[in-house]
Amino acid sequence: MNITTIQSNFFKIRSNKAFELFVVAVILFSALVIGAKTYDIPAHVLSIIVWLDRAITAFFFIELSIRFIGEPNKRTFFKNPWNVFDTLIVVVSVIPIQDSEMALIGRLIRIFRVLRMVSIVPELRLLLNSLIKALPQLGYVILLMFIIFYIYAAIGSSFFVEINPVLWGDISIAMLTLFRVMTFEDWTDVMYETMEIYPFSWIFYLTFIFLTTFAFLNMVIGIVVNVMENEHAEEAKEKAIADGDITIEDLSRQIAELKQLIEQRK
Amino acid sequence: MNITTIQSNFFKIRSNKAFELFVVAVILFSALVIGAKTYDIPAHVLSIIVWLDRAITAFFFIELSIRFIGEPNKRTFFKNPWNVFDTLIVVVSVIPIQDSEMALIGRLIRIFRVLRMVSIVPELRLLLNSLIKALPQLGYVILLMFIIFYIYAAIGSSFFVEINPVLWGDISIAMLTLFRVMTFEDWTDVMYETMEIYPFSWIFYLTFIFLTTFAFLNMVIGIVVNVMENEHAEEAKEKAIADGDITIEDLSRQIAELKQLIEQRK
Amino acid sequence: MNITTIQSNFFKIRSNKAFELFVVAVILFSALVIGAKTYDIPAHVLSIIVWLDRAITAFFFIELSIRFIGEPNKRTFFKNPWNVFDTLIVVVSVIPIQDSEMALIGRLIRIFRVLRMVSIVPELRLLLNSLIKALPQLGYVILLMFIIFYIYAAIGSSFFVEINPVLWGDISIAMLTLFRVMTFEDWTDVMYETMEIYPFSWIFYLTFIFLTTFAFLNMVIGIVVNVMENEHAEEAKEKAIADGDITIEDLSRQIAELKQLIEQRK
Amino acid sequence: MNITTIQSNFFKIRSNKAFELFVVAVILFSALVIGAKTYDIPAHVLSIIVWLDRAITAFFFIELSIRFIGEPNKRTFFKNPWNVFDTLIVVVSVIPIQDSEMALIGRLIRIFRVLRMVSIVPELRLLLNSLIKALPQLGYVILLMFIIFYIYAAIGSSFFVEINPVLWGDISIAMLTLFRVMTFEDWTDVMYETMEIYPFSWIFYLTFIFLTTFAFLNMVIGIVVNVMENEHAEEAKEKAIADGDITIEDLSRQIAELKQLIEQRK
Repeated sequence: MNITTIQSNFFKIRSNKAFELFVVAVILFSALVIGAKTYDIPAHVLSIIVWLDRAITAFFFIELSIRFIGEPNKRTFFKNPWNVFDTLIVVVSVIPIQDSEMALIGRLIRIFRVLRMVSIVPELRLLLNSLIKALPQLGYVILLMFIIFYIYAAIGSSFFVEINPVLWGDISIAMLTLFRVMTFEDWTDVMYETMEIYPFSWIFYLTFIFLTTFAFLNMVIGIVVNVMENEHAEEAKEKAIADGDITIEDLSRQIAELKQLIEQRK
Repeated sequence: MNITTIQSNFFKIRSNKAFELFVVAVILFSALVIGAKTYDIPAHVLSIIVWLDRAITAFFFIELSIRFIGEPNKRTFFKNPWNVFDTLIVVVSVIPIQDSEMALIGRLIRIFRVLRMVSIVPELRLLLNSLIKALPQLGYVILLMFIIFYIYAAIGSSFFVEINPVLWGDISIAMLTLFRVMTFEDWTDVMYETMEIYPFSWIFYLTFIFLTTFAFLNMVIGIVVNVMENEHAEEAKEKAIADGDITIEDLSRQIAELKQLIEQRK
Repeated sequence: MNITTIQSNFFKIRSNKAFELFVVAVILFSALVIGAKTYDIPAHVLSIIVWLDRAITAFFFIELSIRFIGEPNKRTFFKNPWNVFDTLIVVVSVIPIQDSEMALIGRLIRIFRVLRMVSIVPELRLLLNSLIKALPQLGYVILLMFIIFYIYAAIGSSFFVEINPVLWGDISIAMLTLFRVMTFEDWTDVMYETMEIYPFSWIFYLTFIFLTTFAFLNMVIGIVVNVMENEHAEEAKEKAIADGDITIEDLSRQIAELKQLIEQRK
Repeated sequence: MNITTIQSNFFKIRSNKAFELFVVAVILFSALVIGAKTYDIPAHVLSIIVWLDRAITAFFFIELSIRFIGEPNKRTFFKNPWNVFDTLIVVVSVIPIQDSEMALIGRLIRIFRVLRMVSIVPELRLLLNSLIKALPQLGYVILLMFIIFYIYAAIGSSFFVEINPVLWGDISIAMLTLFRVMTFEDWTDVMYETMEIYPFSWIFYLTFIFLTTFAFLNMVIGIVVNVMENEHAEEAKEKAIADGDITIEDLSRQIAELKQLIEQRK
């Protein structure tokens, strides 16, 4: 059995629907194992879970190997960011970790394995891609929002630092406080505190709320308009294919034919 | 009087508009009785209410019987989920309950009788159906949201459990806490607590808020786009019927006729 | 000078733009007077305000008289709900009030005079009308929402009354508590309290939040779709008027003429 | 070297892409300096920052001079509000400030220099312009909202002032409290307090919430519809340019030509 046969066999496995479903099942099971670990469980159950964990790690390693070996063109494999993500998760979880510091990262890696669900199920991958694609279009709105935050945080941390250093200590803490104000989370407590020293500081908070709400609305509308347009474009395309037999162009051609016919008869 | 006559008579009653209005009135009255029971009421009024309750139960039993007997095709009766719901509510409320444990369920059943309003009024039934229909389309967004919640809950309950077991005790409690964070309900209290131990845990909360808000927005936009499209489709249909007399296709036919005419004269 | 002359003169005054602006100015001034009264003001300023108040009342009485006398058809005057509203406000504020109980209503009437702004400025009247018009279309959604509230309030006040009678005392208090939950206002405090007795009561709150959010979203989308449709209809109308010279119908007519021409020459 | 040569040279510098990028870099750097100042920093670093600050001020002065001298038509320079804003910021920051009172304003000016980012980057300027343009269209909705706020504040400060003067002391404080209620920030605390004296005051809060939410929704929808329309108009324009070769008008012309042809042959 030569390498090409192995590869084509592995490619078949990889493309197999049942294999995909089985991988999804293992991911779901690994998610449940992660969840179970957060409960107070007796020692002997815990030891079973540790073994299950190793089995899952081994399975993911084998699965990834199959996918890699089954790939006809090795180079394109790592051009897919999802494959890079999968490889990273699997490789890191295979490394034996002794250090307690690193154990933390090990735990995180195990949790991120649940994200493999997204890399396996095509619909979720599509959804996440569309979310990521929408981000750059909103780039300037986010930049503007950041400038608003930065200016207000600079003002806030300059004037209110003596009133409450916990909330206005430096510019980064002030930005966190402003994010809190933006979510309306006990924002009046923050405001009433500064209004005792600066009675007109409500202007600071109200203008901030208006500006950020307005910018946020624009962001939302930006997404809506974008989604709508894409939908329209697709619809128009489909429509053109579906009933494209008679258009104004066709009519024009018909009339031109008619003209020719009349002229011929002269 | 044979069975068919009874059935057709009952079918007439069932389809009667006045009968429907009377049933709605009884449901409204049963809702008021349920509401009245939650107030502090004297004993003799309570005994009246108990009798009213029995009368309502009896009426609903009779009403359902009429509807069932009046049904020309008995088999299709239970294919309508609303009929199944009605029957369940009526049958359970007829069963005499002695056990105090079961009395609770009896009370619940009485409350759910108000939902019969939805099964009687066609407009409400339509509305609820459209709500239910919208759900599966949002299936993958909900799944993605659940994955986000699960991963963040796993991280949260792994790292923050020692800080506050009431909020991060196990993965299900952590998911409830995260839902709280998503609704911005005192989320800064939760954050400030963990920031004392992990000063960079604000990243955890902020990324979570951004991801869930973004996913939620997509869900909303999904519904909007869907509703809009349905509206458009209906509109286009109506328009086609309304002024469909002259279309581009008609023009094309007219020109073709013209061509034929000219060719005939050759 | 006969009555008709008076009427036509008053009608001229009424339709006068300067008169309208003056009325708006008086309303604004009355609003300022109302606002000023809420501040701690010295006695002599207060006495001036009382006199200003009487002057405003007198002015409004005269203004309404002019409007009524200036009306060519007396019957249609009270068919306009805004006129009825104006008359009510003016008439009640003219009645001398001695009773302290009634003084409260007098104060309210003075405040509602600010609403006359809406009845005078046509753009605001239009805006409010459109808001009111949107309501009945949402009727069934509001009814469904009320049913959801009622059922959850009935369940809540049945099960949680012993836990906290202040929040779940009777069905109306429970509905207020549920509205609070819907606005996410300290809703976790309400939930944690009941979860101590009924650990699964989070299902009650979460399903409630999902249902009401979903219904609210439908309401919003209902308004959006409605507004959009009206806009589209108007646009289409305007467009038809603007460039309606050449339509498909016109083309059809042209071709028909052509056909006739050819046939004539036979 | 005469003045015209200097001007054209400066115009070249001004239009240079590298120069623009360098200005953006300096603005970013000045923002970082502002941020750094809010942290606890040792004295010698602070003295460096003070020197950096002066260097930035000098740079901005030179940059503005270049832009002004490079302007071919001096009069149009100050017609651009962004240039006025830039000049104001630069001129005020050049003035040496000794007074401690004025030092505050000096600090603010330094912070507002970050806003120069918006005046330099065209995309941000466009975005902010579109935000500002959307405001007047919403003018009447904002006016209506203000009237609602004013009336409710007048009622609130008349009736609830004895209950809690901190929240309902005068009409302006009451409006701030109502804004708090609108953001759902501990609004039930405000309500429960007044419900102890006026048990039916929940009607006040609920109607206020419904009215403002409804008005806010209309505002949002107004923006959405407006944005959508502009998008549509642009799209339609682009489309007309792109495939404008054959329209119904063209068809009509073709048929007219045909008619002429037939008539000529008579």
